Amino acid sequence: MYKYNMEELNKKTIDQLNKKGVQVQDIAKIVYELQKDYGEISLEECQDHVQAVLRKRETIHAVLTALAIDQVVDQKLFPEPIQSIIEEDEGLYGIDEVMSLAIVNLYGSIGLTNFGYLDKKKIGIIDQLDKRKGKEVTTFTDDIVAAIAAAAASRLAHKNKEGESK
Amino acid sequence: MYKYNMEELNKKTIDQLNKKGVQVQDIAKIVYELQKDYGEISLEECQDHVQAVLRKRETIHAVLTALAIDQVVDQKLFPEPIQSIIEEDEGLYGIDEVMSLAIVNLYGSIGLTNFGYLDKKKIGIIDQLDKRKGKEVTTFTDDIVAAIAAAAASRLAHKNKEGESK
Amino acid sequence: MYKYNMEELNKKTIDQLNKKGVQVQDIAKIVYELQKDYGEISLEECQDHVQAVLRKRETIHAVLTALAIDQVVDQKLFPEPIQSIIEEDEGLYGIDEVMSLAIVNLYGSIGLTNFGYLDKKKIGIIDQLDKRKGKEVTTFTDDIVAAIAAAAASRLAHKNKEGESK
Amino acid sequence: MYKYNMEELNKKTIDQLNKKGVQVQDIAKIVYELQKDYGEISLEECQDHVQAVLRKRETIHAVLTALAIDQVVDQKLFPEPIQSIIEEDEGLYGIDEVMSLAIVNLYGSIGLTNFGYLDKKKIGIIDQLDKRKGKEVTTFTDDIVAAIAAAAASRLAHKNKEGESK
Repeated sequence: MYKYNMEELNKKTIDQLNKKGVQVQDIAKIVYELQKDYGEISLEECQDHVQAVLRKRETIHAVLTALAIDQVVDQKLFPEPIQSIIEEDEGLYGIDEVMSLAIVNLYGSIGLTNFGYLDKKKIGIIDQLDKRKGKEVTTFTDDIVAAIAAAAASRLAHKNKEGESK
Repeated sequence: MYKYNMEELNKKTIDQLNKKGVQVQDIAKIVYELQKDYGEISLEECQDHVQAVLRKRETIHAVLTALAIDQVVDQKLFPEPIQSIIEEDEGLYGIDEVMSLAIVNLYGSIGLTNFGYLDKKKIGIIDQLDKRKGKEVTTFTDDIVAAIAAAAASRLAHKNKEGESK
Repeated sequence: MYKYNMEELNKKTIDQLNKKGVQVQDIAKIVYELQKDYGEISLEECQDHVQAVLRKRETIHAVLTALAIDQVVDQKLFPEPIQSIIEEDEGLYGIDEVMSLAIVNLYGSIGLTNFGYLDKKKIGIIDQLDKRKGKEVTTFTDDIVAAIAAAAASRLAHKNKEGESK
Repeated sequence: MYKYNMEELNKKTIDQLNKKGVQVQDIAKIVYELQKDYGEISLEECQDHVQAVLRKRETIHAVLTALAIDQVVDQKLFPEPIQSIIEEDEGLYGIDEVMSLAIVNLYGSIGLTNFGYLDKKKIGIIDQLDKRKGKEVTTFTDDIVAAIAAAAASRLAHKNKEGESK
């Protein structure tokens, strides 16, 4: 009944991020920025953690839903007034952040503070997505990318600690 | 810049719930079921609390987004594979529940447990929305209605306690 | 610097649950009750999922903190008024539920609704912990046990689905 | 049965924050820093919003629990290993952040991102509490202060927007 297996779903999720101009590498760079002061890490390691986050069913569901909303709002297919509210990324609209919690929460509380930080500081690709607003709807996309980065940073921190305590 | 004031937004939110076959009264009945064992309450009181929840900006944003998603998925406008996943309300799809947290969290932790309970027990209109699946997309709608009821029940519990402790 | 490795922490967590009269088996039985209608499962399988939840650092931290609070409140060591509020498990006190989210959130949104349901229905050991109130402080313990069960049920549902979709 | 009314509880909460070296004014200054770039605001206004947050039952419960935990850990009354984990504010211990969500969530999603930001940037009194670590346990206190500030900033943002849209 359910037509896709997890591998296909993971591939489709990365495809749709790419279509929106977001590469796994871009997200890995944010993870590197977040974690570089806490120990020796490589960009490859960061990329592996981003990939691991993107293989989780909950992440896949959140990313695909977020990108789909931005897409239909770009095509002006949502009814008013929510069409305008999302299109203009109205200051107090926070459903994009709430949806991101589906990813952030999976990796414990460090993910949460990293997400809050990224949402305010807008590093790398998050900043670029933010600047495209006006020409293109990125209301949900920028938050979901911040969530993936925050979750991957949290995963990395947990795994490194695990190694250390053995 | 922002075109609607809160009163208009509240009115539009109730309108769109009505269009989907959900009356404020239906939600009030669920609140009554949830709270009747904890003290003397009337259906009118429950309705007032539902109305108060529906006047909150965060509720309005969550309800309008949820209803809009169900609407465009009903029109088959979301890209695959997320179109099928939401259309069939796939068992492990939980973004609808996560979105509902935007409302539930506003009224403290009682809201949370009431929401979890309603999501499993499906009382009244929630059950009816659930049974319409197959003919109509109600994936986000049933959870958002459960969230409004859970939040209103939590608001009622807090207010009654406030009175008591004075 | 950090004195315990994960294996020791896991052992100590189970020890302290046992001291409070909670066996891994008791929690496995709740998982079984929650999931038995969704496919063929054994009690052993449920127990494995409970064990997996109890090996997570975030779970260990939450359980040890919850049990420690109940213990010091039992010894009347918290300052007033919070001593009385927790001791009597005052109706609107919800910090115990919020702390449980540290565990529940790790396994996606099904965990959340299962937790809300258990918090209201109080199956098996949760009911027994609830009934000990008055003689013994179990304010945080009953919620944390519900959280472990809800998380394990969610983990089981995800794993079974994974197998199915291959 | 429940011995305190909300006014008394509010007074006791502020008393205990003061005893820990935290003034309402200190928290108001953080709110001012967070919000000064989004419109004309005064420190008095910020203080009013902090006071409003501190009158909420959920806030009171979270603050009193957080301060009580730091107090008993300071007195070495928690059992090991959680005594050492909290005392040293171990890097991956996140139950303090989770508890703070009880406050942050009450004011919608802006509260969440402000909280994540403060948890990383440590402005004003939060920085001072952080620097006292080693001499005094402030593991839960610094996060709970960040949560109050984040919630008050979110409350202010919502109220100002409300005024604007009328």
